[in-house]
Amino acid sequence: MGIGKTRFGAFADRDLRSLAVESIENALSDAGIEPTAVEAFYLGNFAGPSFTGQSHLAPYVAGAAGITGVPATRYEDACASSGAAFHAAWQAVAHGIYETVVVCGVEKMTGQPTPRVAEILAMAGDVSADGTFPEIFAAIARRHMELYGTTREHLAQIAVKNHSNGATNPYAHLRKIITLEQALAGKVIADPLTLYDCSLVSDGAAAVVLSARPGAVKVLGCAQTSGPVALRDNAEISHLPSIKAAAEKAYAMAKLTPRNIDFAEVHDCFTIAEIIAVEELGLCAKGEGGPWSETRQKPINRSGGLKSKGHPVGATGVAQIADVALQLRGQATGWQLENVNVGLAQNLGGSGATSVVTILGKNN
Amino acid sequence: MGIGKTRFGAFADRDLRSLAVESIENALSDAGIEPTAVEAFYLGNFAGPSFTGQSHLAPYVAGAAGITGVPATRYEDACASSGAAFHAAWQAVAHGIYETVVVCGVEKMTGQPTPRVAEILAMAGDVSADGTFPEIFAAIARRHMELYGTTREHLAQIAVKNHSNGATNPYAHLRKIITLEQALAGKVIADPLTLYDCSLVSDGAAAVVLSARPGAVKVLGCAQTSGPVALRDNAEISHLPSIKAAAEKAYAMAKLTPRNIDFAEVHDCFTIAEIIAVEELGLCAKGEGGPWSETRQKPINRSGGLKSKGHPVGATGVAQIADVALQLRGQATGWQLENVNVGLAQNLGGSGATSVVTILGKNN
Repeated sequence: MGIGKTRFGAFADRDLRSLAVESIENALSDAGIEPTAVEAFYLGNFAGPSFTGQSHLAPYVAGAAGITGVPATRYEDACASSGAAFHAAWQAVAHGIYETVVVCGVEKMTGQPTPRVAEILAMAGDVSADGTFPEIFAAIARRHMELYGTTREHLAQIAVKNHSNGATNPYAHLRKIITLEQALAGKVIADPLTLYDCSLVSDGAAAVVLSARPGAVKVLGCAQTSGPVALRDNAEISHLPSIKAAAEKAYAMAKLTPRNIDFAEVHDCFTIAEIIAVEELGLCAKGEGGPWSETRQKPINRSGGLKSKGHPVGATGVAQIADVALQLRGQATGWQLENVNVGLAQNLGGSGATSVVTILGKNN
Repeated sequence: MGIGKTRFGAFADRDLRSLAVESIENALSDAGIEPTAVEAFYLGNFAGPSFTGQSHLAPYVAGAAGITGVPATRYEDACASSGAAFHAAWQAVAHGIYETVVVCGVEKMTGQPTPRVAEILAMAGDVSADGTFPEIFAAIARRHMELYGTTREHLAQIAVKNHSNGATNPYAHLRKIITLEQALAGKVIADPLTLYDCSLVSDGAAAVVLSARPGAVKVLGCAQTSGPVALRDNAEISHLPSIKAAAEKAYAMAKLTPRNIDFAEVHDCFTIAEIIAVEELGLCAKGEGGPWSETRQKPINRSGGLKSKGHPVGATGVAQIADVALQLRGQATGWQLENVNVGLAQNLGGSGATSVVTILGKNN
């Protein structure tokens, strides 16, 4: 797997295409592959047309990276857009359709007024039934608190951990340590979520080259599932069954259990989402995500997560996979974990309408 | 192959989801498949978020059709969005990834002010380099006239033919015969293109069920290619090499030549696009698309084409394939061709940045 990333951040002088091309060129260079050897291009992007006014982004980006003539398509599944693109690309390579493909995730979000950003993000939910995403995840958090005794402190400690983690990742958007007191005293966005419970609005891109030839890192399992787009169509909103279903399929493919996962990058669009993710992934029992996370017994979001690394929506799925792969290759400079052999990446679209879970391991 | 379509038209009382669901239910019913048996859902949609304010459309549509839990992703490649979705779905079934999948194409375009529609459509080109699509194809037409002697009459006769064809198709948007005089006297949109040279702004959906089990119709070849998004990046704008490349791949897969094609549905977003399509597909020599079309020696766009059937952008690719399949099954009631065994569907994104060519045959 060739890996390429841009820094995540707010880049007034960068457009969507230049970010995507930087990540693709880095991934091709890392893999030692010429763009002319790429047989298909998969672009994960949530809302480029709304954020930037440009559609048809797959050939638009691919051509600028020297990849032309081959199938080039944009995949959209809200915040799981590049997870879905990766899933399709991995299937194609694993089943012999292609030998060498590129998957890129990108989003250029900054430069828009905040209400417009919120409006675009809300389109990932059911616009006729749901509110904004902070409101959706606040409702989920309140229910989780009610059912399982999760507290404001449990949420805040996720933010503290992820900020502490991201502070050492040179590619992270917000490299700033925060205290529990700061997190708890943050401005309320949607009760009980404060500013510190919310991930960042970022620009950025990540790309991987997938090859049929063995490399240092191997995809052991990858699964995508779907569920209701409208929050009200979920039987129990403190559960996100599409994550659990994708995880079970990915574990089965990998012939592994949650015990075998050494570390994970999970989709902490809000702190409550990380708590629910570790539960649905089976890393701890249902309802115990808050207390379990406090123990820090397994590294979760060592990159800083969406909370500190940043969340350029369409880039996130591939960025998580790239970060897991960097850890397994021992190349997470500044944030390297010791003795890790198997890592998991979990990408969420909306409030569970799309889930993608990918398990990677060292190719021994 | 299960086939489902809605009528194309301007439906003030229909939203995107209800159109998509109608086509999916029709396709499932035609195939005798329950929604719970569907293993993956592929949605082709160009600009649903811009036209309707709703993203994450794949699980949004799939769930309403009873397809849930499985991978559900939106594919976007401008006007070739559902051609690209079909290509990916067909690859997955042909390579044993899935046994049964649904591909749906949909667009809800009406209900917006005309300038906004033009703005959204222009995003399929390079917004920093290109003008509107009538302007793009007018430039292509002027160059084709200059190089090959194509005339206004050649363009107009394509419109006359396709209106005459669509008049007998009960699913067509505009079932109205026009005369050559009318076509030539149309209001100039972008010289030399008049109103009658432009396809329609429509609402509509089409869906197919693809199955690994043999049916009455078989996909003999399907290929997708890419090219420059900006018109100025083409070496010669009267050629659309991505069509030719996709066609050559599809012919090779099918082990057929253009002579074996009994009829075709081609992407006549503008009349000049049909003339260039028949050339690039090898149905006639380069430059002779105008005179060749006048002879009507091979049925092209018997459905009425985008010109008369309508062009709900994201629906077009799958609708073309569905129409070819209906012909091969002898079910094109009102517009059935005699003695047809092999048909071709050609779907274009932008001014050639994406091309998909699919060849279907009777399963003897």
